[in-house]
Amino acid sequence: MSFFSKRLASTFTMKSVPTKARHNIPLPSSSFPSGFLLGGIHAGVKKKAGVPDLAVILSTSEQPTTAAACFTRNAFKAAPVLVSDEILTKNGGYARAVVVNSGCANAVTGKQGIDDAWAMVKATDSLLSPSASSSKFEHETLVMSTGVIGQNLPISKILAGIESQSPSKKETCVLGSDFKAWELAAQAFMTTDTFPKLRSRVFSIGGVEYRMAGMDKGAGMIHPNMGPASTSFSSGPKQLHATLLGCIMTDAAVSPRSLQSALTYAVDRSFNSISVDGDMSTNDSIYVLANGAASNGRVIDEETDKEGYEIFKKELTDFAADLAKLVVRDGEGATKFVTVTVKGAPSYRDAHNIASRISTSALVKTALYGEDANWGRILAATGSVPLQPTSANTPPPTIDPTKVSVTFLPSDGTSALPVLVNGEPEKVDEVRAKEILTLEDFEIVVDLGMGMDGEAKYWTCDFSYEYVRINGDYRS
Amino acid sequence: MSFFSKRLASTFTMKSVPTKARHNIPLPSSSFPSGFLLGGIHAGVKKKAGVPDLAVILSTSEQPTTAAACFTRNAFKAAPVLVSDEILTKNGGYARAVVVNSGCANAVTGKQGIDDAWAMVKATDSLLSPSASSSKFEHETLVMSTGVIGQNLPISKILAGIESQSPSKKETCVLGSDFKAWELAAQAFMTTDTFPKLRSRVFSIGGVEYRMAGMDKGAGMIHPNMGPASTSFSSGPKQLHATLLGCIMTDAAVSPRSLQSALTYAVDRSFNSISVDGDMSTNDSIYVLANGAASNGRVIDEETDKEGYEIFKKELTDFAADLAKLVVRDGEGATKFVTVTVKGAPSYRDAHNIASRISTSALVKTALYGEDANWGRILAATGSVPLQPTSANTPPPTIDPTKVSVTFLPSDGTSALPVLVNGEPEKVDEVRAKEILTLEDFEIVVDLGMGMDGEAKYWTCDFSYEYVRINGDYRS
Repeated sequence: MSFFSKRLASTFTMKSVPTKARHNIPLPSSSFPSGFLLGGIHAGVKKKAGVPDLAVILSTSEQPTTAAACFTRNAFKAAPVLVSDEILTKNGGYARAVVVNSGCANAVTGKQGIDDAWAMVKATDSLLSPSASSSKFEHETLVMSTGVIGQNLPISKILAGIESQSPSKKETCVLGSDFKAWELAAQAFMTTDTFPKLRSRVFSIGGVEYRMAGMDKGAGMIHPNMGPASTSFSSGPKQLHATLLGCIMTDAAVSPRSLQSALTYAVDRSFNSISVDGDMSTNDSIYVLANGAASNGRVIDEETDKEGYEIFKKELTDFAADLAKLVVRDGEGATKFVTVTVKGAPSYRDAHNIASRISTSALVKTALYGEDANWGRILAATGSVPLQPTSANTPPPTIDPTKVSVTFLPSDGTSALPVLVNGEPEKVDEVRAKEILTLEDFEIVVDLGMGMDGEAKYWTCDFSYEYVRINGDYRS
Repeated sequence: MSFFSKRLASTFTMKSVPTKARHNIPLPSSSFPSGFLLGGIHAGVKKKAGVPDLAVILSTSEQPTTAAACFTRNAFKAAPVLVSDEILTKNGGYARAVVVNSGCANAVTGKQGIDDAWAMVKATDSLLSPSASSSKFEHETLVMSTGVIGQNLPISKILAGIESQSPSKKETCVLGSDFKAWELAAQAFMTTDTFPKLRSRVFSIGGVEYRMAGMDKGAGMIHPNMGPASTSFSSGPKQLHATLLGCIMTDAAVSPRSLQSALTYAVDRSFNSISVDGDMSTNDSIYVLANGAASNGRVIDEETDKEGYEIFKKELTDFAADLAKLVVRDGEGATKFVTVTVKGAPSYRDAHNIASRISTSALVKTALYGEDANWGRILAATGSVPLQPTSANTPPPTIDPTKVSVTFLPSDGTSALPVLVNGEPEKVDEVRAKEILTLEDFEIVVDLGMGMDGEAKYWTCDFSYEYVRINGDYRS
């Protein structure tokens, strides 16, 4: 026991969790989309005074604001998920506001929870200025909550907080549109996150310049599997399932159908491709609002404006991936940021399933923490995933172990290190392996060599003592 | 940093990994099946002198010895898995010997690995006394290996070790049939195990007394998913997949077909229902040998002796569960032994999938380590599992959150603690919750309340600092 304490202490001293503060970067106000007013305040959900726990985001555009969402596929969807899905479906993809609280997830809270979520929606609705849409929609706000499961919201504090943000209440309203306003909103999303996750970008379609900005939060219970909202134009099964929260705003104009299809595509290749601990939350939600404030009359739509749509979809996917990667970077106890690429698979789905399994393996993740090039564990994880049958009447394809290669790719531009080539272990230069594995960022490439082009990426972190500490006494 | 070191140290000091030595119990020699000669020696695979790393098990019965196996479903099956499956299939379910080494898994070792596994088989074959089966089968030995992946066996040391165990070599042969011999064999299975896992039992069918004894090993990379050997009478898809090793010997006589079907049933409800870390190995293998030494002419068979078969199947299942639980008990860094029961599900398969997910969740397992009754994490894990469609053309059933209940059951016979009843959180008495969660053994019961009788059990352990330490520097 005293021996072990000593060993543990010495191992730990060698390996602390790096500070993530450098990822909290200032952004030029000119990179934020126009026509949004937002901010974050301390409403009192969190105990510590002054810490933002309530964000309000309002579209002030005179153009219609479209909205789309992807929600957790968990069977125990939290009240804000159920309520937001209902509103978005009823409105056919229109919404002008988002309200978010951290500190309490409003999940498994029964009828009271549903009532509370509706109360947040109604209070935020009344902050919106009247517009052409006001008469068409009963509600125009989407809601999100994150924090502990199974506790009711301190709803009167939250409602008072929302009401204080009426733009007419000059003395209490903090809403704005500059960097500080965006950052306050991003701070209000945080739970065990160590920095606010806010990014922005400028892009152009057909010579018109648009902006996109957004924030997300994560830290633990991060292995999202989100599907589209129940709106009638959603493709795929109605399986709402995601506590990753994210909200993306743009001043482009996008049709409701195309905004949802672009988001569904983007989420699969970003938020649904990250893992901190393999646990799917009851609250995971990603919203996107497109307010058309910079649209100049062009409405992006996959049928009537294919070219514009493809550009927008790519921008949204890349932006969503940027936000998703910040969540991995700030994963609870994470000391590594590892990209897992699986290629040469029969399909994207197979590659994605295998990359997910590798990214979730406790043995792979503790080896990453230990900076150990233990490719045997990577291979065992790879081989544990059954491939999908390509048709109903044929057996699924099988991996040929003699075709599989595994390579470690450093992030510093130096040469790659193959550790397994066509099923044969390489003589690994352990010094070189250590050089790569002591980097904070690197990539693991698994090539199944099946002569097919199924390829997927996943982003994951390591499993550290700190993860166990955080989650061993989260409630206490 | 210094703050964190201090916190970590204090948290750890509160919670050490309990010693498992009390599970290493002496067994009466009269409880071991007759007609087996076995033992374990140090052949030199492991560095440390004197530590057993090679076990040899021989049947000396004059009756035919039948054999069955379940192997890992991993795509990267180790050489001993491939070779043993080939022999068992060719022989139609007969084998008279097992040879096992620890310290090196002989996995991902290419052609050399296959040659080495065959060499172990042949060397062990030549320890067997001639019998009626000798002329019928080219090989009569099954082989197993466990340890590091991707390294070749020190095959000459192993072969010398096997040859030294020829019963004719009185000066070097340690094989015997008393407790000491069985214990030495069990010790030779061990890798990071902290105690040898050996159990025995006596049972009777139709007034005849039989014995069953066996050993297994586990510790890490434990989340088996094993299917039957490729023998022509295997039902189900040919998907060989299972570093859990286990070997069970009985002096009953069982037909090859029925031995395999009883083992497949037993493994699904024992070894395939445990998790230490959610990682499936390339080597997982369970063998059973039935040598008929106590048979008195009765051959147990599911068609010709249904009654005997059902008793045998139940004994084998209970015995396999006993061995499987020892693996969880001795899981790397484990301080808890937790039974997860899921009931009220549409099917056994759904209940099993959900119990598996709860048992694998990093958040649930760190909460168990922290002795925190965090049922929200249990629920999130439950809800993340998609249920199976009941037919090809109907959508899968869905969980109704308002019907779900979660209860903590202490192992000391005191009263149960409901934490969620029909979807509503109970006011939990935290003092009582702590009383239960500080026990080493307890049970979590999740009742889906779907009015169906799908029920399954899983056995799991917690996730501790010690797990991270062991696996962060396994190779160094």
